[in-house]
Amino acid sequence: MECTNKFSRKFKDVSLEELRDKLAEFAKLRNWDKYHSPRNLLLALVGEVGELSEIFQWKGEVERGLPNWSNDDKKHLEEEISDVLLYLVQLADVCGLDLGQAALSKIVKNAQKYPLLD
Amino acid sequence: MECTNKFSRKFKDVSLEELRDKLAEFAKLRNWDKYHSPRNLLLALVGEVGELSEIFQWKGEVERGLPNWSNDDKKHLEEEISDVLLYLVQLADVCGLDLGQAALSKIVKNAQKYPLLD
Amino acid sequence: MECTNKFSRKFKDVSLEELRDKLAEFAKLRNWDKYHSPRNLLLALVGEVGELSEIFQWKGEVERGLPNWSNDDKKHLEEEISDVLLYLVQLADVCGLDLGQAALSKIVKNAQKYPLLD
Amino acid sequence: MECTNKFSRKFKDVSLEELRDKLAEFAKLRNWDKYHSPRNLLLALVGEVGELSEIFQWKGEVERGLPNWSNDDKKHLEEEISDVLLYLVQLADVCGLDLGQAALSKIVKNAQKYPLLD
Repeated sequence: MECTNKFSRKFKDVSLEELRDKLAEFAKLRNWDKYHSPRNLLLALVGEVGELSEIFQWKGEVERGLPNWSNDDKKHLEEEISDVLLYLVQLADVCGLDLGQAALSKIVKNAQKYPLLD
Repeated sequence: MECTNKFSRKFKDVSLEELRDKLAEFAKLRNWDKYHSPRNLLLALVGEVGELSEIFQWKGEVERGLPNWSNDDKKHLEEEISDVLLYLVQLADVCGLDLGQAALSKIVKNAQKYPLLD
Repeated sequence: MECTNKFSRKFKDVSLEELRDKLAEFAKLRNWDKYHSPRNLLLALVGEVGELSEIFQWKGEVERGLPNWSNDDKKHLEEEISDVLLYLVQLADVCGLDLGQAALSKIVKNAQKYPLLD
Repeated sequence: MECTNKFSRKFKDVSLEELRDKLAEFAKLRNWDKYHSPRNLLLALVGEVGELSEIFQWKGEVERGLPNWSNDDKKHLEEEISDVLLYLVQLADVCGLDLGQAALSKIVKNAQKYPLLD
């Protein structure tokens, strides 16, 4: 997908709808829909959150930007964060929710909950 | 952002980069960057996964599409799934990762791990 | 239960079996057994782990002994850690497992995995 | 520890204090105390909850007693439930909490919150 953002910069962006479509096709081609009930996907998500936490568990406080991490550790982190995202997108999909619109609405709601002070 | 997908359908899509930018601005305007260390955001993510799980905890097996759920329950679910996503996007951002590209790469890797049978 | 440990000190100890029995009776008296399927209890456990994480999420690194925590915060932490334990005990129970013996066996296994160096 | 319960039955019970003492000694002998900060142990706990969830993730609803599970699957489950318990006990310990008393107090509080109907 080709998009133009408000700065007129061209970039290869990744949308939640694109991920959802790819993942739905992926599961369908492998006949995995029968496993993808909401609670199965939720527990799979919890499993991936666990793997994500394991990366951080013995590190003590970690600085923004991960300045002292090896490329291998960063690559591992990318994969585990992605796994969480992919199950989250699929969970929303099998529940019939529009995750992108829901996320935008939640940001608006948060802005009302935490208004800017003058 | 206005996009055209492969079916030439016009739609309002939501990209991970758009969410990332909105959330970074949100935190900056409220002077919250000091709280947004990787492990703080990770624990906040775990907290939201807990709230998401609470929605499903006493329901037994849940069918795809949530056929018997009230609109209020669906709305609540949308908010909790969104909260997980918003912390995930922020975690990736403060770690300096490109979540969208990472997710696409993970799908490719999964396709190699689980090839289609003829 | 009155026990004597190896130091011949009298104390009021709390056993996993005692907790299991109290919780089983608690659920039975309230007719809650029908809700206590393994996956329901597992998701309830995940929910409580989320609440436990929320206590720690914005604190940055926390020192052993919680030196700067208020009594209210410590009390809150005691309750959330307890909630995790209570669901864990119930999960093991409905799965028909002996949690105490399993935990002792796991410590022995860990000792073999991480032997002491001379 | 030898105990006698209200039914005058002799049994080998396992107490939270016993587990705490064994784990504290285990960590001390291996010089692991430096890794066992509260948030490190909490993230390790989340990691183990993830592994526990992975056992249940593709199974759909599971019956009490795990009637169709293999012995290997039950053994695996025992180990993962134990891992969660062992980190929980250690987390409470480094926070200076008495987990057993806290758990008993929480049961009393729950009984007040959910009183028995006549």
